Amino acid sequence: MEKMIDLNCDMGESFGLYKYGADTELMPLISSANIATGFHAGDPHVMRESVALAAHYGVRVGAHVGLPDRVGFGRREMNVKAQEIYDYVLYQLGALDGFLKAAGLTMSHIKPHGAWYMMAAEKREVSEATVKAVLAYNPQLDIYTLPDSELYKSAKEAKLNVVSEFFADRPYNDKKVKMFGWTLEEIGHPDEMAKRALKVVEDGTIETVCVHSDTPGSPAIMKAVREILVESGLKIGLNK
Amino acid sequence: MEKMIDLNCDMGESFGLYKYGADTELMPLISSANIATGFHAGDPHVMRESVALAAHYGVRVGAHVGLPDRVGFGRREMNVKAQEIYDYVLYQLGALDGFLKAAGLTMSHIKPHGAWYMMAAEKREVSEATVKAVLAYNPQLDIYTLPDSELYKSAKEAKLNVVSEFFADRPYNDKKVKMFGWTLEEIGHPDEMAKRALKVVEDGTIETVCVHSDTPGSPAIMKAVREILVESGLKIGLNK
Amino acid sequence: MEKMIDLNCDMGESFGLYKYGADTELMPLISSANIATGFHAGDPHVMRESVALAAHYGVRVGAHVGLPDRVGFGRREMNVKAQEIYDYVLYQLGALDGFLKAAGLTMSHIKPHGAWYMMAAEKREVSEATVKAVLAYNPQLDIYTLPDSELYKSAKEAKLNVVSEFFADRPYNDKKVKMFGWTLEEIGHPDEMAKRALKVVEDGTIETVCVHSDTPGSPAIMKAVREILVESGLKIGLNK
Amino acid sequence: MEKMIDLNCDMGESFGLYKYGADTELMPLISSANIATGFHAGDPHVMRESVALAAHYGVRVGAHVGLPDRVGFGRREMNVKAQEIYDYVLYQLGALDGFLKAAGLTMSHIKPHGAWYMMAAEKREVSEATVKAVLAYNPQLDIYTLPDSELYKSAKEAKLNVVSEFFADRPYNDKKVKMFGWTLEEIGHPDEMAKRALKVVEDGTIETVCVHSDTPGSPAIMKAVREILVESGLKIGLNK
Repeated sequence: MEKMIDLNCDMGESFGLYKYGADTELMPLISSANIATGFHAGDPHVMRESVALAAHYGVRVGAHVGLPDRVGFGRREMNVKAQEIYDYVLYQLGALDGFLKAAGLTMSHIKPHGAWYMMAAEKREVSEATVKAVLAYNPQLDIYTLPDSELYKSAKEAKLNVVSEFFADRPYNDKKVKMFGWTLEEIGHPDEMAKRALKVVEDGTIETVCVHSDTPGSPAIMKAVREILVESGLKIGLNK
Repeated sequence: MEKMIDLNCDMGESFGLYKYGADTELMPLISSANIATGFHAGDPHVMRESVALAAHYGVRVGAHVGLPDRVGFGRREMNVKAQEIYDYVLYQLGALDGFLKAAGLTMSHIKPHGAWYMMAAEKREVSEATVKAVLAYNPQLDIYTLPDSELYKSAKEAKLNVVSEFFADRPYNDKKVKMFGWTLEEIGHPDEMAKRALKVVEDGTIETVCVHSDTPGSPAIMKAVREILVESGLKIGLNK
Repeated sequence: MEKMIDLNCDMGESFGLYKYGADTELMPLISSANIATGFHAGDPHVMRESVALAAHYGVRVGAHVGLPDRVGFGRREMNVKAQEIYDYVLYQLGALDGFLKAAGLTMSHIKPHGAWYMMAAEKREVSEATVKAVLAYNPQLDIYTLPDSELYKSAKEAKLNVVSEFFADRPYNDKKVKMFGWTLEEIGHPDEMAKRALKVVEDGTIETVCVHSDTPGSPAIMKAVREILVESGLKIGLNK
Repeated sequence: MEKMIDLNCDMGESFGLYKYGADTELMPLISSANIATGFHAGDPHVMRESVALAAHYGVRVGAHVGLPDRVGFGRREMNVKAQEIYDYVLYQLGALDGFLKAAGLTMSHIKPHGAWYMMAAEKREVSEATVKAVLAYNPQLDIYTLPDSELYKSAKEAKLNVVSEFFADRPYNDKKVKMFGWTLEEIGHPDEMAKRALKVVEDGTIETVCVHSDTPGSPAIMKAVREILVESGLKIGLNK
């Protein structure tokens, strides 16, 4: 059986007249799109267009749920209660499904954004509330998160499908990703990122590699990552 | 066969710490609840609680979709494009379905709120965009609107189920409802409202009677309306 | 010379159609009103009306600045940067001054709201950014805060005027105020609150006593507090 | 005495992570900057940076006030009441003055944005409410508007200083500007825009020429406009 690797990207983060991210260049290169659901970024029009773009390339569509902090782009940790997290998940999953249903498509996964991603990785209360909402809404959804994170554990305990993620365009120190405040120098040239990604994937626990649509040069990075993975014999897509 | 009349109410319009409307008193009295979907009013927590309250009383749940104007409570006409209307419907229907799905319930209907309700009644472009979105999302949804409105016509043409609505707590002049700027004197005592409602229902074209949760004394009004209709031999519920 | 005590109240927290707080009953009882500036609560219409109400009773008007979290009412701690705090202060002070200037009035003080109030009390970075913005905007403003807080220290170091605050309607344990999650039982009857306030004021370091407009029974509490203080020989107003 | 012409530009329309408009290239070329005040666009951080940029080049700073419709970028007409307009002006003028005051600068003018600009040009109720707020806040402010507009008339009647505006980067038909829905073909090459601007300025009633920061190629357009006006013997700046 062929070995597979998923390539995912955070997308649909434009808002109103504001354009953001290299979505059109990236969509042909990936297997899973995480589409912003109108809280940290995105709006109903952007969501419809993002879903259509993903559909055009046969890319899996997931919900990139965020904190209600548009001016902070969902990157500022907020002291939200478990019940609030639960409600934010249901609202945002549903909203994205509005566009998927209209397009005759099915949601495949969920990936929290920014501060929520890190909070769910580190705080049991947040990871459990996120998982509880996914269980209530649709237990078929794959949950994207860091390996060994609290979200990973909570999802496993709930017998949900978890997808271990590696960030090709972020520096890691001692296996810990530096999500914010990194420099271009730290992440290096696309070829270096591709090599790091390959090495990590070959180590065997990672199931998906992410490149952010708003990282400078993201299409070139994703191309390099994709090429090196394909050349090593991997097939692009989620192993299910 | 028993003749039926639906009683509906706009609800779930609280937001954050702000309490609004007599939802808990009204829910036991109605057959259909129109729950705000987070644009003009409502938030994820209010939506979850409103769905739970409706479920408790076996009340049908519909989406009370609104314009993105929270400070104006969706009552200010906005020059939105057809495509924007379409996208706002899908987002809000989906968002409410997030909570319904988690509660194991099914959405029954849609009713635009405030300025949108009037725009859909008068402007072909708005009514068609609203209908187009319902068709794409779920053609089983009943559409609540004024008889002889543009939305009524658009929905009928699309072979959707339309429910003709009468407002018990709003004055009518020459069969035209005065939605905003009315006075308590104009609408009168609950008994008068109940009598007007009965008369209109007996005339035969109206299928649902609305009392707004934020009309002063709304529970007393709804009780009076319900009583007079039941005493006249009608069964409370939507005739389907 | 007569000894004085200031009575302050967080106000102007209504929003759009949502009414909040017993502002009209409280305004005649206080000497300083902290008016919400449109971030955690309030809106331009509420601000104008609140300023007019304060002017009518000759009450000092201060800015009750909040975090940009309307659905959370500014009560959720957010990981905001010092520069963001600084900018939020300038925007909100200016916005309130728009209404004061139009009314021919002068702003007297600033009091951060909710999570910001506690963050400024505990985190040096937040207190310094708040002070820096006040210095840049108007060093005549009094800063309301807890005694011994970081904000107290930062303001003193900047040679700004600080006003030490006691909360009559919140429980204290070991001199530490419990701002959130308290019960009505814990705070007790208005008379008990009044007695606690008197005792603290007599101890000598407190210059202002706060009752929140949204505490159940706030007018009765404020009346009891005012009465006991006046009866003890104090004059209501800020000692300047 | 030297004849003068003002060059103005709508700016500061970025928001959070979203970058918008060629502000840094345009600021050295203009004499008056209209800075968004956080309703249709802009945020506290963008406002501070925009004020600093204008100060660096000695450019006059005005408030570009907008409707509370961020997702529609303030371009959708809304049925706002006169009192709401009045309150929105005070809030936004004050908010911008927060940053000006901190920078030791003085606000010079006001220019409504998008739908508000057109509403104030056509609707007496809107123009009068706008003027009334300026009168209450600061009657020294210049008001930018179309010649022969309602806002022009209302401001003149109130003895406020009005500045007649021409849009170099918008097509005109029969002296009527086409603000929305124009094409690049309609507006033509920068040299054509510059020639049109020169002709209109020479006709004598126009006091300021606007190029929008978000028009494609706006710096080249502004350069062409500036050059042709300077070469014709005009000095750049507002004639006061």
